[in-house]
Amino acid sequence: MIAIDFEFQQWQWQYQISTTFFICVILPTLYYLYSKYITKSPNNYNKLESPLKVTIPIPEEARPHWKGKRLYPPSIKLDEEPDKIQSYCPATGQYLGTSNVTTREEMDEKIELAKHAQINWASSDFSIRRKLLKTMSRYILENQENLARIACRDSGKTKLDASMGEIMVTLEKVNWIINNGERILKPNQRVGPSNFLLKFLKSAEVRYEPLGVVSAIISWNYPFHNLMGPIIASLFTGNAIVVKCSEQVVWSSKWFIKMVKECLKTCGLDENLVQLVYCFPNDADYFTSHCGLNHITFIGSKPVAHAVVASASKQLTPCVVELGGKDSVIVLDDVKDMNALNSVILRGTFQSAGQNCIGIERVICLPKSYEKLCDIFTKRIKDFRLGSDIDQLDEIDMGAMISDNRFSQLEDLINDAVSKGANLVSGGKQFQHPNYPQGHYFEPTLLTDVDSSMRIFHEEVFGPILTLIKARDIDEAVSLSNSTEYGLGNSVFGSNFTIINDIANRLHSGNVAINDFATFYVAQLPFGGVKKSGYGKFGGEEGLTSLCNCKSIIMDKPYLRFFGVQTSIPPPIDYPIEDDKKAWNFVRCLNIAGYDPRIWAKIKAIKTLAKSGN
Amino acid sequence: MIAIDFEFQQWQWQYQISTTFFICVILPTLYYLYSKYITKSPNNYNKLESPLKVTIPIPEEARPHWKGKRLYPPSIKLDEEPDKIQSYCPATGQYLGTSNVTTREEMDEKIELAKHAQINWASSDFSIRRKLLKTMSRYILENQENLARIACRDSGKTKLDASMGEIMVTLEKVNWIINNGERILKPNQRVGPSNFLLKFLKSAEVRYEPLGVVSAIISWNYPFHNLMGPIIASLFTGNAIVVKCSEQVVWSSKWFIKMVKECLKTCGLDENLVQLVYCFPNDADYFTSHCGLNHITFIGSKPVAHAVVASASKQLTPCVVELGGKDSVIVLDDVKDMNALNSVILRGTFQSAGQNCIGIERVICLPKSYEKLCDIFTKRIKDFRLGSDIDQLDEIDMGAMISDNRFSQLEDLINDAVSKGANLVSGGKQFQHPNYPQGHYFEPTLLTDVDSSMRIFHEEVFGPILTLIKARDIDEAVSLSNSTEYGLGNSVFGSNFTIINDIANRLHSGNVAINDFATFYVAQLPFGGVKKSGYGKFGGEEGLTSLCNCKSIIMDKPYLRFFGVQTSIPPPIDYPIEDDKKAWNFVRCLNIAGYDPRIWAKIKAIKTLAKSGN
Repeated sequence: MIAIDFEFQQWQWQYQISTTFFICVILPTLYYLYSKYITKSPNNYNKLESPLKVTIPIPEEARPHWKGKRLYPPSIKLDEEPDKIQSYCPATGQYLGTSNVTTREEMDEKIELAKHAQINWASSDFSIRRKLLKTMSRYILENQENLARIACRDSGKTKLDASMGEIMVTLEKVNWIINNGERILKPNQRVGPSNFLLKFLKSAEVRYEPLGVVSAIISWNYPFHNLMGPIIASLFTGNAIVVKCSEQVVWSSKWFIKMVKECLKTCGLDENLVQLVYCFPNDADYFTSHCGLNHITFIGSKPVAHAVVASASKQLTPCVVELGGKDSVIVLDDVKDMNALNSVILRGTFQSAGQNCIGIERVICLPKSYEKLCDIFTKRIKDFRLGSDIDQLDEIDMGAMISDNRFSQLEDLINDAVSKGANLVSGGKQFQHPNYPQGHYFEPTLLTDVDSSMRIFHEEVFGPILTLIKARDIDEAVSLSNSTEYGLGNSVFGSNFTIINDIANRLHSGNVAINDFATFYVAQLPFGGVKKSGYGKFGGEEGLTSLCNCKSIIMDKPYLRFFGVQTSIPPPIDYPIEDDKKAWNFVRCLNIAGYDPRIWAKIKAIKTLAKSGN
Repeated sequence: MIAIDFEFQQWQWQYQISTTFFICVILPTLYYLYSKYITKSPNNYNKLESPLKVTIPIPEEARPHWKGKRLYPPSIKLDEEPDKIQSYCPATGQYLGTSNVTTREEMDEKIELAKHAQINWASSDFSIRRKLLKTMSRYILENQENLARIACRDSGKTKLDASMGEIMVTLEKVNWIINNGERILKPNQRVGPSNFLLKFLKSAEVRYEPLGVVSAIISWNYPFHNLMGPIIASLFTGNAIVVKCSEQVVWSSKWFIKMVKECLKTCGLDENLVQLVYCFPNDADYFTSHCGLNHITFIGSKPVAHAVVASASKQLTPCVVELGGKDSVIVLDDVKDMNALNSVILRGTFQSAGQNCIGIERVICLPKSYEKLCDIFTKRIKDFRLGSDIDQLDEIDMGAMISDNRFSQLEDLINDAVSKGANLVSGGKQFQHPNYPQGHYFEPTLLTDVDSSMRIFHEEVFGPILTLIKARDIDEAVSLSNSTEYGLGNSVFGSNFTIINDIANRLHSGNVAINDFATFYVAQLPFGGVKKSGYGKFGGEEGLTSLCNCKSIIMDKPYLRFFGVQTSIPPPIDYPIEDDKKAWNFVRCLNIAGYDPRIWAKIKAIKTLAKSGN
């Protein structure tokens, strides 16, 4: 008997339990809870893994109230110097710097440096990899504002957009890998053959090994997060990485890479594990068909993806292709809190001025919800305030777009929709900001009565345009959602879980959020689309293992090794074949013994095998 | 107390156990054993799933002692009819039939039929899918000899080669999926976000959904197995499949497809789920860039792979690419049973006349093993008997090759090696069989003293040539093995498990067998190569999930739904942003609360959040 007396202030507990009960029930329960909830948490207090402090000077351009010269008109290309990329702030037109494009020789060199650095890194243990990630996580946590300001300066977004789309998602990714990475990448026992004769002999497992030098070709919309995601995953899987950033965000990418290299150095690691290249699209083929790259993650647009995959086919380099979407939100009529919902839809549509690969592109509503949302959006969207958030003292809701080269395309899409019966409630054109005449602003736009006859229903907008579409019933809503060539993400809102869960199953896309927007991304589920939204996954378990050689290993069961038994070729099927018929009969019976479900057929076959097997 | 009395003939057992002990120990143990060993076995006795009997007439050409007319010379192309493919037996030159190539219109039509059939099949349950696979398994088991004869007739291999390389591996695949498929494809709960605030709110899972119409472009070396593997996996994952067989084995592929359709019909299913197309390589682009295909599995050679991937890039169709290899066997000096080992190497080299993507292409030995194996192979290989196994009464060790179009290439490789110092011990040239002068035979060849200066060390042979290579030590053996552009499979043999396991880790390939040859394939481990052997996996868990849309789903935790709680946008970050600073501070604290490892920092951040959150 075990007696437990517990006394605390006015409470008194007294228990007497049998020792058997304690051993059989209490102890296993405690162990289960411990192993499930305690050991899975990050090992924060392991001294070997504790994060180090990194200090890097913050660029002047990212400081509050920085006064930089403005470009008239701003452009990343310099007519007289085709080998240079000019960086500027899209929200103000302020000049940030000029960089030489990476030459072919420099690409060769950087890939070679990465390859060399990876040799040792491949066999590094998870402790040092976690230490590196924890050091990054600490730096990000302690420098949230600086990092956000650098990202905003180069992309024109607001600090709030950056806090969620750049900082939070990066912190989630790095911490998720710290907590789960080793579990996912340790050797994975498999069930092995279904033939019971083989099953008793062979042990099967998959071991995850780094691929070598991987690369990521990334889009400009989240200059910090899009860059850090592939770097974190590649380094943790033991790879080196060469990132090709977008020519739109060279200035900030260079600084972020400097930060990563500083973290590597502080941890005593080789900074050559991470490399950055940039060039104009016309010169990218040399990079994408480079024999030194073992994997390509491409995050960008569909037209470019065709070229990247075709180029990578020259070296048969595997690609993960993450493109845009025409993500829909389906809103049923039984949604309870329409105010909560419309806030989610506004955030999903206008975050980063709509330049979000999982941004909401279509809001498909059943009739009652349609009327309600129409009213709410009409009131709310016209009040949006635009500007350069990090320079302005007033409140700002939406920042600039990365460039002005798609404004006429957006206006065309809107005009096409209006000509086919859509109702342009607010916005609809480029916005000339009084304080920032060189800034690339587009008015937050609300289009109602949109239908599938319009181009804007099918073509990716990637801008601040909310399109409201009415569907008769659930079937039409699902069929409308599925009727574009894309299939990245979707959301569905309603009160009856069975119904919305069923809709989630019927949507053709790689990701679905039920009663929420895009949180599948934050939850580190594998991320990727179907149809023309691309293929392959980054993020989560699949994201890590896709950067590995999943090596299949087969060996004799440990107990066979213990007894010194080794499998070999049975005499009837050994060369020279003594008797064709006997050999055939041997394998025939082996197949029956292994795969016939009837127990007597098995036994008979095993008897024949035993007779003929020597 | 529970009393158990057991009496059987002269034995008497009597037990008295406490009820607590029974409930806490015995019952859980029984349940554990039941769930681990009983429920995981195939549910053979489930009547709904029991296999049906299928009967199909066997073609005359596959019967013993069939007398068919011989072609002089045999060729799959007919000069006067470029739209026809002529089939013949490579071992005898006997004519098997002529088929019209699939036209573009027929391809469109077949893909459309498959697409239509897949709509219902997508939502079929696993019971009917298992029933179908069990019906196929039963047919294969009961018709081993007929199936082998059909495969042999079209490919020239021996029945023994077919029994293992066609029948056994197909039975393993189909039964493995029957036993494990549902477990792998059912929705998979994931850990979800690492931010503990989100973790309590959100439930994350991956659901595996069929892609639609998938395709497999397959090589001729195992006409039955290579065709059946993708069909079995595609059907079980709820897809329809269009197979493009090699123009070398149209005759048998048509028959095997007929068999599959018969199994579908017998189970009451739509036979249009499976389609077959064939054409000459020059016309294949229409198929590989067809917009109706959602996935391509390509099994073939490297030059063709470049074209297939580039062609598929037009529609951004995801590809799994399975090419050849230059697989090595590393033999250490401490191997105990050299006789057992050399039998394995002979089987691995000469099965299917070496036309095996995981065939042994290089035997790399440490010095002592080298001498021993040299002696043994010199004696054994010269005794090999060639012929058409299914027509001949004498014993046969090796069959014909698929065609004579690579003989001069093989002879070139051998001559190059000999000119650089290799020793041609036996074989080395085309073999004119006295009984089958039109048959495509090549002498079983042994080349010793091969080194890395020779072309045969690097170029895939895909023929009956054993090359013996000497390595000074383990490091040199590993470095030699890794020094080709391929990385499909390898084997390593030795007595010290720690040493050979370490070698297995150092080999650059997708698969490694320790003290065995290629059994990773039979064990349904994920199969695929690295480097120029391709990418992506078929077989095993990864093989099934790669044919699926792994849909990421996020939703509120069930207990939140129970209490009617729904997550929403917190006021500080809702549009219009009331106070930029407050909004920034809110997300900043959310990040600290979620990701700062220091408990006090977390608590402080949560306090700030609670204050500012409304």
